[in-house]
Amino acid sequence: MGTTQLESVPEPKYWHLKTVIGEALDSDFTVGEILPNERDLAARFGVARATLRQALEQLELEGRLQRRRGVGTTVAPPRMGVDVSTSQHEWPGSDTDAWQAAECTVAVPPVAVARMLDTDADEATHTVRRVRMIHGQPVAAELLFVPAASVPALPAIDAPSGPALARVVLRELQRLGLEGQDRAVELGSARADDARELDRLPGAPVLVVTTRYFAEGRTAAVSVATYRADTCRLTFGDLGDLQISHHDQERRAS
Amino acid sequence: MGTTQLESVPEPKYWHLKTVIGEALDSDFTVGEILPNERDLAARFGVARATLRQALEQLELEGRLQRRRGVGTTVAPPRMGVDVSTSQHEWPGSDTDAWQAAECTVAVPPVAVARMLDTDADEATHTVRRVRMIHGQPVAAELLFVPAASVPALPAIDAPSGPALARVVLRELQRLGLEGQDRAVELGSARADDARELDRLPGAPVLVVTTRYFAEGRTAAVSVATYRADTCRLTFGDLGDLQISHHDQERRAS
Repeated sequence: MGTTQLESVPEPKYWHLKTVIGEALDSDFTVGEILPNERDLAARFGVARATLRQALEQLELEGRLQRRRGVGTTVAPPRMGVDVSTSQHEWPGSDTDAWQAAECTVAVPPVAVARMLDTDADEATHTVRRVRMIHGQPVAAELLFVPAASVPALPAIDAPSGPALARVVLRELQRLGLEGQDRAVELGSARADDARELDRLPGAPVLVVTTRYFAEGRTAAVSVATYRADTCRLTFGDLGDLQISHHDQERRAS
Repeated sequence: MGTTQLESVPEPKYWHLKTVIGEALDSDFTVGEILPNERDLAARFGVARATLRQALEQLELEGRLQRRRGVGTTVAPPRMGVDVSTSQHEWPGSDTDAWQAAECTVAVPPVAVARMLDTDADEATHTVRRVRMIHGQPVAAELLFVPAASVPALPAIDAPSGPALARVVLRELQRLGLEGQDRAVELGSARADDARELDRLPGAPVLVVTTRYFAEGRTAAVSVATYRADTCRLTFGDLGDLQISHHDQERRAS
């Protein structure tokens, strides 16, 4: 299609181009296929490379395309439904938990986390780093902040380091009676360390889920989990098995 | 700072630049202030404009910057906590509802929605368009799909059009006994019509919340709501009053 047709559309050029490429993905490409390079694609659709790049970014936001290190841009599979509404009565690290403890350090948490935990701004907490795997692929990286007050017996334990220490912290945490939890979801960009775990470039769009765990009348732990926004759809309840994607809706509505 | 310093960092250049600009936002700018143009900023930080643009995109993803039509790039206020966990026993349009019904049409829903509603692929449903306002600002746009089977008395009602018709559909829907609801959250890009309502450019990152409403043993209605990802943090429970932002975490961790 030529540029003339694109120019007659009142919406931004990249927006219309996005729809056109989206249709081409459905008809001419299969999941996992590598897209031609930007120069060839720009020529094929008769647009400037800047316009093409904007359209590809849209399709990446919508989970239709994936950019992968050393591979290029590929056609993405449908997003996975990932349940984040764990039982109100389960601590992190319980038997049914989908997370793997990777390490444990003692560090001063971010200001916002310290505020939630009601700890002093310069007070260090146990910080458990965990990864959530689905079908052998990492889908999320988590930092779980546990103040010393929530695991009072810990200093007396001759704790090993790394994953073993992480498991001890989680086990001690489970001694507290969990009273409830709440959650917030927001858009973020992957920190360098999370990006490495998630096999993404630093700055890739992620969904940040912050969970507060309440016990003994206070916030006993805070989890900040970073989910891959390209491959995950976060579910609350049992929507997980159903496919709903924004681009389907759009294609039908337009 | 010169390019030499940036080049010595193993992470991508834009990533380090993002941190540097983030710190400058804290120290040299106030909320709502308009940033200098890209050429001046690139010169100030001694980087190429492409690198600068990538860093600004990161900061936009994290909610630190806002790009506004005809205004330019401004320093964003902290994100608002927006509660999306409505009571399990309330239909859309109940008295405590934060949404304003804008119009109602009859249209064939997207394929994914038809699948959830178990309607035929070409069966039209009532489609109520609503907007959610907070402090006079639109934060979300919604399409609520209500199949004819969920509002059986409707054809007999001499319904007006527009917002009044939308209210009649919601009122009829409330006659059903609500059995529960579930929800999914994923990243998307704003459709042209949603973007207009939300005062954003088409393609802006949004958080898409899909809610299924169950009644009489089936899915009686489906809502697809598009929240501004730049200004909203979606809360489940009562986290709404607390400030947690990814960039705080990162600044502290680095």
